[in-house]
Amino acid sequence: MTDPIILTTYDWVPEGPRGHVRDVRIRWALEEAGLDYEVATTPFYDRGAAHFQRQPFGQVPFLEDNGVKLFESGAILLHLGRKSEKLMPRDAQGEAETLEWVVASLNSMEMVTVPWWFLRVSGDPDNGLAGWMNQRFEKLESVLAERDWLAASRFTVADIMMADVLRIPMKLGALDDFPKQRAYVERVTARPAFKKAVEDQLAHFASADRARA
Amino acid sequence: MTDPIILTTYDWVPEGPRGHVRDVRIRWALEEAGLDYEVATTPFYDRGAAHFQRQPFGQVPFLEDNGVKLFESGAILLHLGRKSEKLMPRDAQGEAETLEWVVASLNSMEMVTVPWWFLRVSGDPDNGLAGWMNQRFEKLESVLAERDWLAASRFTVADIMMADVLRIPMKLGALDDFPKQRAYVERVTARPAFKKAVEDQLAHFASADRARA
Repeated sequence: MTDPIILTTYDWVPEGPRGHVRDVRIRWALEEAGLDYEVATTPFYDRGAAHFQRQPFGQVPFLEDNGVKLFESGAILLHLGRKSEKLMPRDAQGEAETLEWVVASLNSMEMVTVPWWFLRVSGDPDNGLAGWMNQRFEKLESVLAERDWLAASRFTVADIMMADVLRIPMKLGALDDFPKQRAYVERVTARPAFKKAVEDQLAHFASADRARA
Repeated sequence: MTDPIILTTYDWVPEGPRGHVRDVRIRWALEEAGLDYEVATTPFYDRGAAHFQRQPFGQVPFLEDNGVKLFESGAILLHLGRKSEKLMPRDAQGEAETLEWVVASLNSMEMVTVPWWFLRVSGDPDNGLAGWMNQRFEKLESVLAERDWLAASRFTVADIMMADVLRIPMKLGALDDFPKQRAYVERVTARPAFKKAVEDQLAHFASADRARA
């Protein structure tokens, strides 16, 4: 007997981040794996002690899985990968590749793209991180010229992570010179589980709008 | 029968990064765990196809462990954590905490500190990421006000990762207002395995200097 997994996200967010709040990564993985889950909420305003006790940076998502609690979307994806072979292969090399590409998405790509985006929002689109980001895109382009999926020649949680990391740079035109990466994001986000995850997140926040009205 | 783990780093680097090349994280974990390993090298100049085939971004370290190959220091630390209970507890919650704090080190802290440092090296110490970085330090300070180790009330690979992430900001004075974080870095890096890892890395590059002379 196992209880449903409990995924916690904000009770409400402004329009801007909707569709991109990081619970979408977890919803996507849970839908791919067909795992039973419920969505719980924590206040977007007035983040209190209970929130910081579960997520020390005041962010979302965080997860509870039959008594095991954890935060950080990358950690949660790897945790779910261990639960379902649909998300991560079971052989040692396949698992290593999934692990390395989840971490590469976070630490070799998102470590540049999110600060670039942060500075861009602050008013400087051609900021001091643009050249470094382009170097990373060039390297990833070479990888995706030779394969459809990052790890183990199949879909894994590494594709969830990398595709989600690339969505915002792509939307902002930063991938215009990188056709393999654009095709990769389109291929991965064409999966029904991604579409359901985004729709469910949008519906969650739309419902919060109605409750506030 | 298992073969020694093979840790690959550069054959040589300039003075600046010595002591901070990311193989130090892996040397440290291997020394803590008492695992048998050898150090191999890849050229710092003329990074060729063989390097990119093992590490698509042309970085180090990468690892081979009895046929299993992987890159990204965060992924390698988690892989080694699975091999040795000295690096990661075996209960589900302890493992989840180790995992979440390795990822938080990479994606909630280093995602801000490394781009901040990158812009600082480019000439702007009070750059557009300083405020964001300070917010992250404030949150981590609250965590370390209440505990000595990040995960599971004991030393884990999460402490290797976080302490190494904090070493450069601390050296640059960015932790001057955060005494708990400074004490944490001092506590974690006082471990003999850290000292041996740094000394071995420095000796490795000093030997390369002599070979080049």
